[in-house]
Amino acid sequence: MKHMSLKIIFLGTAGSVPTQKRSLPSILIQRKGEQVMFDCGEGVQRQMIKAKAGFHRKMKVFVSHMHGDHVLGLPGILQTMSLLDRREKLDVYGPPGIKGFLEGIRKTVQFVLTFPVEIHEVLEAGAVCEEPEYAVRTVWTNHVIPSLAYALVEKHRPGRFYPQKAKALGVPEGPLWSKLQHGQKVKLSNGRVVKPEDVTGPFRDGRKIVYTGDTRPFKEFAKFAADADVLIHDATLDDDLTERAEEDGHSTPEQAAKNAKAAKVKQLILTHVSARYKDTSPLLKHAKKIFKNTVVAEDFMEIEIPLLDS
Amino acid sequence: MKHMSLKIIFLGTAGSVPTQKRSLPSILIQRKGEQVMFDCGEGVQRQMIKAKAGFHRKMKVFVSHMHGDHVLGLPGILQTMSLLDRREKLDVYGPPGIKGFLEGIRKTVQFVLTFPVEIHEVLEAGAVCEEPEYAVRTVWTNHVIPSLAYALVEKHRPGRFYPQKAKALGVPEGPLWSKLQHGQKVKLSNGRVVKPEDVTGPFRDGRKIVYTGDTRPFKEFAKFAADADVLIHDATLDDDLTERAEEDGHSTPEQAAKNAKAAKVKQLILTHVSARYKDTSPLLKHAKKIFKNTVVAEDFMEIEIPLLDS
Repeated sequence: MKHMSLKIIFLGTAGSVPTQKRSLPSILIQRKGEQVMFDCGEGVQRQMIKAKAGFHRKMKVFVSHMHGDHVLGLPGILQTMSLLDRREKLDVYGPPGIKGFLEGIRKTVQFVLTFPVEIHEVLEAGAVCEEPEYAVRTVWTNHVIPSLAYALVEKHRPGRFYPQKAKALGVPEGPLWSKLQHGQKVKLSNGRVVKPEDVTGPFRDGRKIVYTGDTRPFKEFAKFAADADVLIHDATLDDDLTERAEEDGHSTPEQAAKNAKAAKVKQLILTHVSARYKDTSPLLKHAKKIFKNTVVAEDFMEIEIPLLDS
Repeated sequence: MKHMSLKIIFLGTAGSVPTQKRSLPSILIQRKGEQVMFDCGEGVQRQMIKAKAGFHRKMKVFVSHMHGDHVLGLPGILQTMSLLDRREKLDVYGPPGIKGFLEGIRKTVQFVLTFPVEIHEVLEAGAVCEEPEYAVRTVWTNHVIPSLAYALVEKHRPGRFYPQKAKALGVPEGPLWSKLQHGQKVKLSNGRVVKPEDVTGPFRDGRKIVYTGDTRPFKEFAKFAADADVLIHDATLDDDLTERAEEDGHSTPEQAAKNAKAAKVKQLILTHVSARYKDTSPLLKHAKKIFKNTVVAEDFMEIEIPLLDS
């Protein structure tokens, strides 16, 4: 169903230095007309234009950490949204420092905001954003400065509705069906009470998309990413540079694949690939030895995550 | 001669909002191994990579004004240069506010600078930078906030050296020739004094490249741009939107062409083209009615300016 669609667009997949083919880090999730962005590297506004993503939609930006390659695209998005006369509020989440960053820009770079920007500095891990249909949860990672991983987790949905069961129990089609579909019990004119579980299947799981931001491997991560549909993982350096990755606070393909396996995710996507790798097939090979369903992200790669009925 | 080359690379030619084809404003002049940049819009570091411009060369950046589309690319260049371990000093010139902008970024976005950055806030018009072979001059334009136009002006060079004349006057080939070529008189072993003007042609003019930044037309500009080899001019809006251009502090193609004509420049290049113009041929047509040698800039367009012997 179109309105249930969830699409991940990789706007930028570079390491800390961009390349001809890779823009600086940013991932855009489009879900039911809303946009959720993970990281916002320089050049993202133009990547959004190229990907035909909108500047007027309901949108939230989640920044992993205050390194320039993950955050310097934010002021330009605010300026362009204002030039296009956006009216809808924009929510920005990130570690402490993000408020001062945007305030400093506003004091020295002159532009008028046409819409409210609400900045949420994340002080502790947990659910930083709760919406009726999903939450965004976060955990502190193990990078060289405070950095957050994010998970967009859809809430459980009511089970599938079976009209034949409702009819058999004497529930007339109409408002009472709707109540049952939305999890409320109903009382029929004959005094009989029908509960949602009498006419629907079991609760259905939502989807879960996890993004590491920048991180070394760390123990608690597998629990955070458990059962994700998609795990988007830092894989800056290949496994022959594991020591260097450790030093710089990054992961290697094998480390990412071990996390994917431990977390029992459905798919692993490697990103934040260093500019030194023109050919990423060795990285893919190293990850696939451990976790088969792996791909290396490329700019403008799009992935649709279906909502499975169970 | 290769070492005399001067090349202009248009890294970004968009208006205030980028497009699929146009990145935000930036112009790079490569001259004898040095790079002089006019404006530094978001995404410039990646445009430099695509244009194969270097991050280690001697370089100066001149920012016209503190609107985001002209300056937000600067922090990313500093970060990438540091990641690539640049050691050479970078000079940054711009209107008041540019120092606070970069200091604010340094306080909130964490990166280590591997090289000195000297920030020069331009307080008054004139020669803001004097080098042995050229100067960069500036004038305040007529925009909605304080904005600078810049001119790179090469100094006069000694005239062409005529070996036959030197030989005829009895000057032996070698160090004495070099002295004469560099403007010094020499004394021969027979006591005779030979002056540079005895063996060289007249002084030769250097080249002059002028960039308006953002501006409405204003009277004093023609003098500032007089006799330029290339005038790179704001032409944000076409002539049917002259009133809107006036309101926003920009110029139209006809206004740019009138400036080119009044200043007697050799070539006019229109840039900062609004995203509304997919087809720029009407803008070109309107300018050409008044000044024939006009082109509309495109991203990665390169122009070589020869050094003419006279």
